[in-house]
Parts: sequence; structure tokens; C-alpha cells
Amino acid sequence: MSAEVIDGRACARRLKEQLVRDVSAARADGVGIGLATLAVGDQYSAGAYERRLRRLAAEVGVPYLHRSLPGTASEADVLAELEVLGADPSVTGILVLRPLPPGIDEARVFRAVDPLKDVESVHPENAGLLALGVPRFVPSTAASVFHLLDTWLDSVGEDRAAFYHRANIVVVGRSNNVGKPAISLGYERQATVQSVDEWADRTTGIGRHTRWADVLVVAAGKAGLIRAEHVSEGAVVIDVGINPRTGADGSVHMVGDVDFESVAPRVRAITPVPGGVGPVTDVWLLRNTVTAARLVAGARTPVEVP
Amino acid sequence: MSAEVIDGRACARRLKEQLVRDVSAARADGVGIGLATLAVGDQYSAGAYERRLRRLAAEVGVPYLHRSLPGTASEADVLAELEVLGADPSVTGILVLRPLPPGIDEARVFRAVDPLKDVESVHPENAGLLALGVPRFVPSTAASVFHLLDTWLDSVGEDRAAFYHRANIVVVGRSNNVGKPAISLGYERQATVQSVDEWADRTTGIGRHTRWADVLVVAAGKAGLIRAEHVSEGAVVIDVGINPRTGADGSVHMVGDVDFESVAPRVRAITPVPGGVGPVTDVWLLRNTVTAARLVAGARTPVEVP
Repeated sequence: MSAEVIDGRACARRLKEQLVRDVSAARADGVGIGLATLAVGDQYSAGAYERRLRRLAAEVGVPYLHRSLPGTASEADVLAELEVLGADPSVTGILVLRPLPPGIDEARVFRAVDPLKDVESVHPENAGLLALGVPRFVPSTAASVFHLLDTWLDSVGEDRAAFYHRANIVVVGRSNNVGKPAISLGYERQATVQSVDEWADRTTGIGRHTRWADVLVVAAGKAGLIRAEHVSEGAVVIDVGINPRTGADGSVHMVGDVDFESVAPRVRAITPVPGGVGPVTDVWLLRNTVTAARLVAGARTPVEVP
Repeated sequence: MSAEVIDGRACARRLKEQLVRDVSAARADGVGIGLATLAVGDQYSAGAYERRLRRLAAEVGVPYLHRSLPGTASEADVLAELEVLGADPSVTGILVLRPLPPGIDEARVFRAVDPLKDVESVHPENAGLLALGVPRFVPSTAASVFHLLDTWLDSVGEDRAAFYHRANIVVVGRSNNVGKPAISLGYERQATVQSVDEWADRTTGIGRHTRWADVLVVAAGKAGLIRAEHVSEGAVVIDVGINPRTGADGSVHMVGDVDFESVAPRVRAITPVPGGVGPVTDVWLLRNTVTAARLVAGARTPVEVP
């Protein structure tokens, strides 16, 4: 058996076409849209993500504003900037780029993001609505994981509900921005969901759990963590990892948390890195920006829980 | 092998002794404490819980206020009452008793509870802080589950961290008030945590998952759901279920989600119903009230995330 490789770029293209239509429809309804990103300091990964979003925003017609603070900025500077963005009526979506410099408390910064413009769902209130099963925004990476799964199920003619109700979804990694939101989306689909912490790798071994996965979502941030012996035939593997690896010639390329070469021949379907989850995530962030724009326009306060 | 029966009443007694000291210490520090419960309509289970809390509050010296609205009350009436309690400086903890009448939107009511007085952690912001791993309040039932586990581990001389890092905790049921908070506490302990939805019972069967549990937490609300064939020897079983059962003589007694008679002989330790999780839960709610009082007194606004 050789796995079907799930094409994230093709999926992102289709989503982008829909997004262009959604942006036009919002404009026609008189809804203003604007995405602002905020970076603190000079980080390679944040910069690369910022450039991708800037290009995508231009392509789909979403006004885009980038604010950059020096790495020496204080927490008060960051909070003040977020207050300005929160009050700016031309900004309907706010994204704080990670990582923040060491001296700045991420939790306090996230609390300062206007909850209605919080397109990555980092404010505790939005994290809470997601945990309670009534999300206002779904963080883009977790949303992309399940969008890829859902559309793959459609493509092979499997009934989504029937599949998920029987499925054991194993999520490796439980970060607040990827693992936990993905777990919440598994709950929403009424699947069995198992969350494997990195400790399992150091004690009983993660294979004890991952081998039982019908769907294996890997978001651990460890290159090649999952190898052939960790998966079962018939599994669907979604690789969220993006780990930089330097080649012999000094060039940097990205590899996933899954050892694609050994795992792909064993499983039913798998996402590649690059070209899997990543491209979908970028579009989803813009999609959330349109959702936020409608929310800000329609229900300034109080917000109804959806 | 016959299981050790974990004595929730003894555990609650010890917690209550500590609580009496905590209440005195708060008073000595000039911190006012007051618990208010709000009931809407006339529900047997809410009434029984209310009477237990009233008695316990008197025993440990916490001023107690009960507000009761008729079953015909509108949502606006409930929200207005919560506003009064939120503004009342003598009230430092607020508990909305469940269930609410059908016409009243639980989510909107929970959003109207002052987040600093929200001792059951029902406001989305508090649910979010818990999901993000920085809880302000831990809902009392989930807290009690892990308090019983932690103290049982201490009693048998097992190192908590070593145990949890290797453990597969399976939680059956994923309600917002019990299952999900218990899952978050499992994450906090860096265990592997598996959440089994009721759908698994209808499709592949829950035994497929529960038999792998080192710790089995059952909060499904189905009497006798877990039987001998669903557990493995060596498992520790915590039964959160409280299901009324009417005897032949018309009297009502409570049974758990676990069929104690068949399961107890197979496992390492088990909580009974009644006398397991329940008694601890009541004390924990009062404990959260003391936490809230200190929070309200010390950090009215803004609140620092702990």
C-alpha cells in the first residue's frame, strides 16, 4: 500500500477562490475588511510568515497593515500598539506574530488583543469559546488540519460523520495554538481524541498510542519524530511540523515532524511538508479576517455567542 | 485482586479542616468572603446541592446567600439578578445552579457571571484560562477527581510526576463542566489523555479505549455504563456519575456510571458512589469561594493571569 499524498496547495487554491468571492460579497454588503500584523523584533519565521500574508492579502484584495516594533520594545509599547489597532476602524483583524522577545509576557499581550478582531483566537475569551464548543474564531492551523481531513474524506467518498464517530484521532503535541484547538475540533466531530504529550515519548514511548490512531495529527515541533513503526496501515497522517534543516550546501529547507519516506508507504493518506498544512493555514487566516470583519460590522457589542 | 476503595468522605473531612483554617486566615487578613447561589425554578438536584452547600457554608463559617427565581423568570430577570450579585461587595463567589429552565440560554447566563466571582469557572474567559493551562478557578468536580487521585498516589507511596508521565488517562464524557476540565487537569500533569465520546459506545464500543486506561475517569451520566469487561487490572477508576435509581420500595438512591460490583474486584482502586467524588466536590466549591474572595480583595482590576 502506498499512501495518497494530500495536496495542500490545491486545497489552498480552491479556498482562495472562495475567499476572493467572500471578500467581494463583504464589500458589496458595505463591510470594511483590514488585516494588521504586529511583529516585535526581527525573527526569521515571523518575517517569512508576514511576507506570505502580505502577498496573499494583496492577491485576495484585503487591505493590509504591518506594524513592526524593535526587539527592544517594552511590553507597554506592545500593549499600546494593540490598543491603537483595536481602536482603528480600518483594522478588523489583528495577528500578533510569534515569537515575542523573551522579556515580554505572551499571555498579557494576547489579553490585549481586541477579542472581536482576534483572528488567531489567542485571547482567553476566544480560547474559552473554542473549548466550550462555540468558537468565535478557529485558529488557522487547527482549522486547516480538519479542512484537509474533511475534503479528503469527501474526495474518497467517505461519509464524514460515520468516519469521525468511529475514529480514534491521536494528536501529538498540545500547544495552545495548534494541539489544543485541533483536539477541540476533534471533539466537535464527536470522535475519540487522544492527546499525547512529549513525556510519553520519554517514558512508555509514543508508539504505544500512535499505533492505534485512525487519524494521526502531529504538531510536536520535532523533525522526524514519527517513523514507520509509530503508525498503522490505514492511518491518515496530518503533519503540522515545519522544522528548518540546513543542507550540505548551506541552503535551508523545511521538514515535517513525520519521516515522510518511511511513513508514506505504510499509511492510507498523508500530507507532505512543505505543501501540506502550511498553504491552507495562510488562506484560513485571511478567511478568519473576513469573519472578523462581519462580526465587527454587525455586532459591535454585545457579541452573541455563535 | 480486590480494589482499594478510595474514601471520598475521609478526604473531604481533611479538606474541610483545612478550609476552616483558610477561612480564618482570610478573615484575619481582612478579606470578606460570601457565597451566593442562584436557582431558577424548582429542580430536585439543584435543591439538594443547594442545601448541602448551605449547611457546609455554615459549618466552615462562610456567609451564604441563596437567591431563588421562579421557573417562569425570564432570561432578563436572571441576568439582572447576576448583575446585582456581581455588584454586591459582600458576595465574592457566585454559583448558578443547574439545570436552568428550557427557555433560558445557559451560555448567555454564564457570560453574565462576574469572572472574578465565577467559582465554577463557567464564564468563557475562565474556561479559556483553564484550557490555556493558566486556570483562575478549577471547576470543583474536575478538581476533586484529581485531588482524590493525587492523595491516593501519596497514600500508596507512588511519585505523582512519575505516575502521571507514564499514565494513559481515559476520560469518558466530555461535558463543559466536568469532562473537559478534567482533561485539562490531565494535561497539566503531562499525562497522555484520551477523551471518549458517547459515539464510541454506539460504534466501535468504548471498551476498545477504556481497557487501555491506567486511570479511568467516568463522567458520562449513564448508570452502569462501565462494566468488568471495560477495565484492565491495575486501573484506577474514578466514578463521577450520580444517577438516581428508584428501589422496589419507592425510595431513591444514587448509583454511579460504573458497575461497582463487577468492576471493583478487577481494578487497583476505585471510588464508590455515593461517598467518592461527591463529598469532595462540595468542599472544593467553598474552597474556590475563598480563592475568589482573595482575588476580589487583592486584584479588583486588572486581574493578572496566575
